[in-house]
Amino acid sequence: MQFTALEIGLLLNGTIDGDPKAIVNQLAKIEDATPGSLSFLANPRYEQYLYSTHASVVIINNDLVLTEPVNATLIRVDNAYSAFSVVLEKYNTVKLNKTGIEQPCFIHESAQIGENVYIGAFSYIGPGVKVGNNTKIYPNTYLADNVCVGNDTTLFAGVKIYFDCIIGNNVIIHSGAVIGGDGFGFAPTADGTYNKVSQIGNVIIEDNAEIGANTTIDRATMGSTIISHGVKLDNLIQIAHNVEIGANTVVASQTGISGSAKIGENVIIGGQAGIVGHISIAKGSQIQAQSGIGRSITEESKKWAGSPAVPYASNMRSQVVINRLPELEKKINELEKIIAELRNISI
Amino acid sequence: MQFTALEIGLLLNGTIDGDPKAIVNQLAKIEDATPGSLSFLANPRYEQYLYSTHASVVIINNDLVLTEPVNATLIRVDNAYSAFSVVLEKYNTVKLNKTGIEQPCFIHESAQIGENVYIGAFSYIGPGVKVGNNTKIYPNTYLADNVCVGNDTTLFAGVKIYFDCIIGNNVIIHSGAVIGGDGFGFAPTADGTYNKVSQIGNVIIEDNAEIGANTTIDRATMGSTIISHGVKLDNLIQIAHNVEIGANTVVASQTGISGSAKIGENVIIGGQAGIVGHISIAKGSQIQAQSGIGRSITEESKKWAGSPAVPYASNMRSQVVINRLPELEKKINELEKIIAELRNISI
Amino acid sequence: MQFTALEIGLLLNGTIDGDPKAIVNQLAKIEDATPGSLSFLANPRYEQYLYSTHASVVIINNDLVLTEPVNATLIRVDNAYSAFSVVLEKYNTVKLNKTGIEQPCFIHESAQIGENVYIGAFSYIGPGVKVGNNTKIYPNTYLADNVCVGNDTTLFAGVKIYFDCIIGNNVIIHSGAVIGGDGFGFAPTADGTYNKVSQIGNVIIEDNAEIGANTTIDRATMGSTIISHGVKLDNLIQIAHNVEIGANTVVASQTGISGSAKIGENVIIGGQAGIVGHISIAKGSQIQAQSGIGRSITEESKKWAGSPAVPYASNMRSQVVINRLPELEKKINELEKIIAELRNISI
Repeated sequence: MQFTALEIGLLLNGTIDGDPKAIVNQLAKIEDATPGSLSFLANPRYEQYLYSTHASVVIINNDLVLTEPVNATLIRVDNAYSAFSVVLEKYNTVKLNKTGIEQPCFIHESAQIGENVYIGAFSYIGPGVKVGNNTKIYPNTYLADNVCVGNDTTLFAGVKIYFDCIIGNNVIIHSGAVIGGDGFGFAPTADGTYNKVSQIGNVIIEDNAEIGANTTIDRATMGSTIISHGVKLDNLIQIAHNVEIGANTVVASQTGISGSAKIGENVIIGGQAGIVGHISIAKGSQIQAQSGIGRSITEESKKWAGSPAVPYASNMRSQVVINRLPELEKKINELEKIIAELRNISI
Repeated sequence: MQFTALEIGLLLNGTIDGDPKAIVNQLAKIEDATPGSLSFLANPRYEQYLYSTHASVVIINNDLVLTEPVNATLIRVDNAYSAFSVVLEKYNTVKLNKTGIEQPCFIHESAQIGENVYIGAFSYIGPGVKVGNNTKIYPNTYLADNVCVGNDTTLFAGVKIYFDCIIGNNVIIHSGAVIGGDGFGFAPTADGTYNKVSQIGNVIIEDNAEIGANTTIDRATMGSTIISHGVKLDNLIQIAHNVEIGANTVVASQTGISGSAKIGENVIIGGQAGIVGHISIAKGSQIQAQSGIGRSITEESKKWAGSPAVPYASNMRSQVVINRLPELEKKINELEKIIAELRNISI
Repeated sequence: MQFTALEIGLLLNGTIDGDPKAIVNQLAKIEDATPGSLSFLANPRYEQYLYSTHASVVIINNDLVLTEPVNATLIRVDNAYSAFSVVLEKYNTVKLNKTGIEQPCFIHESAQIGENVYIGAFSYIGPGVKVGNNTKIYPNTYLADNVCVGNDTTLFAGVKIYFDCIIGNNVIIHSGAVIGGDGFGFAPTADGTYNKVSQIGNVIIEDNAEIGANTTIDRATMGSTIISHGVKLDNLIQIAHNVEIGANTVVASQTGISGSAKIGENVIIGGQAGIVGHISIAKGSQIQAQSGIGRSITEESKKWAGSPAVPYASNMRSQVVINRLPELEKKINELEKIIAELRNISI
């Protein structure tokens, strides 16, 4: 994959300053760039790198005034940062632009496959499965009976989706994610053993959601575990049965959400947080990494921290004192002695 | 899959009240049910839904006295909740009732395969592997050399089992679980690098255990890592080398148990808890979510919380004070001033 | 696989005391050993087991003076523990000594495969992939476009490596690990939705590193996420985009390291720890399990604990007081009353 400065200039509607035939075949940060790289300069703090970079082509802001000579070909645009994002996305789209059905793969005769799809080798498309148009299913992926996958969706290698689950349009699911495994439901018996409670619901992942690598989302006991549109889940997250996550909520890695919890819209949850079952988190809540949320949060758009979690500011205040606890205890003991003396005197 | 009210009534030994030919093809909660659904009412608090539900058939308790007309066909049984569980299980059994060997799969000529098994496409059955009767091995599953899997066991898609591991009867292992990876054992050397300690033991998972999605259970250095009968492990759990977990112990998601720890029978461990290596946890212990267990628990059937963990009640009491620490510190500083004054007076 | 005492003695350069034709076909701890086992005695505390063991052959130290008769054949060496490690490694090497290319597998015509490799069935070797000599790729593994894997490296079953990632020599990656998934990067928009930031960098894993089962290492946004030589990562660890981990650093299970964090060399990080993004951890740091590291650690070779983490010793001191907090509060309240009395007296 290689482009000339001219081609990139046309893509970005930019002005070329230097050799329009300069060729790039990779993207790099301006300070790391080697010849053949395309880079960008958006933050004036890094301007010095512009004069020493080995990049062949650099995207810069229209209003940047050069103070030294530059070796690279420059492409001037209104906003260098967003122009570079356009290039990044273009690059990625080309990188991941696979189509066709590789052999061997397993496609059940009753499955319905859309147009312009990619189905990688060793993928398993079970009975009754529906796959939409332009959807990419990478190798070693498993779609059980009646799974429904929308259009323009990408399932990376080794995704496993249990029966009856529904995946929307423009969804990305990363490698190793398991969608629709049994919820963790067991009924204790008198002899100390447990009876499994059958989990017959499903998982629904709505449009534009992204699910990280090795994340697990359990099917509902009955009904659906719901990941609403625009939700972004990082890697190694646990979503238990019957959880519902509101639109555009973002959850960082290794967080766990227990059964039947309802998370509002536009919530932000840090990494390694834990949320107990059967509670609600109000929309716009912000939950710090490693927090433990033990009860419902009803007030919207507040920040929480700690385990068990309290409002962020009060957690911060308590933490400060915790680190002074040994001195504090010492002081109390000294005061106690003084008081005992005083008491003796006054009595 | 569809059933008439009559068929369900016969299965449950119930009395039909309404149209015995009413057809259902799915199961749903009474408040969510659409036509064609089978539902149930066990908790009298939800009785109102019985009169407005769109379910075609509802299972209710024999002793329920109707106060309004009902559209659905009713099936009366002694215990609506457990009757519905029977239906759930029946439904699930039918859903998951796969048999036969799909192609392509890899079955080594030295492997021994039982009767009435399911082996999904792209599964790998290595040299010397034994698979029992009625066992289901979903697609993309890997069984390394000499793995032994019992009867009536289900390995969902993408399970990976390393060599020499032994899986019992009626075990369920969910997608992406890794059984028998190397224990994390390295010997430091003088130059700061580490030498790997070979891990040549195995993992034994006894009868009726269930292992969650993407959970990892490492093989013993020597001997066996043991998951006893009836143990239930949730998703994304880490079980290190040489751990032994007693019968009927239940562990919630994302908990980690370090090397050589011995967990007793009928222990309950919440999510995201951590247990250090080489300790013992007494039978019947209950460990709260996010706890950190740093030393052995010898007293049976006690509740623990916190990191490092202390008895549950004392953790609760400390937590309450932690949230008051800033005021407490303020109070101490005020007392200090007062005492200084008093001292001046008395001296 | 079976060996005689004589063969083992030759391998270890040891002296045989007993029947040189004694046959062993497994390795076991001295206290668990059954006939046909090879065992060892290094720690004098376990000497008693030597006289009662059922092992057929036992490796002991040259200087051990027997106090009772022994049934097993003995092999005397300078250091029984390290001699046994040699046997363990030999055993493991034989166990895992697979070569050849199993069918069906997918090897793109543009891939370059070294000599003496093992490629298991259902593995996917994409376009432009390079695989070095003596490398073992177990079944159901996925190597995307242009992945480069060195010599003498082992990828266990079901490893998934995204495009452009580079794996060194003598690396071990365990089942289910995902290398090179997209970093978790999203730009918020005015309407509450998020735009994905394309992640076009890669992951570099240097020589002699080991990566645990189901661990996830995200690709860099640009540039590389770097796992330096000799790093050992346990299972279920999250390494975010653009993280750099220094040589010979060891990380225990379920720890998460956030984006762009730089971890020094020879750091030791316990399980379930969390490290926020964009900070640096000085070389030789030791971080306790379940810690939360919220800011850079600049001083080398110090021990840290708690969340947010503080120096280990001060965390220990604070923890002790936390458990006494309820009594401490009570004492403060009592002092307050006494002071009020004293004040009344003195006024």
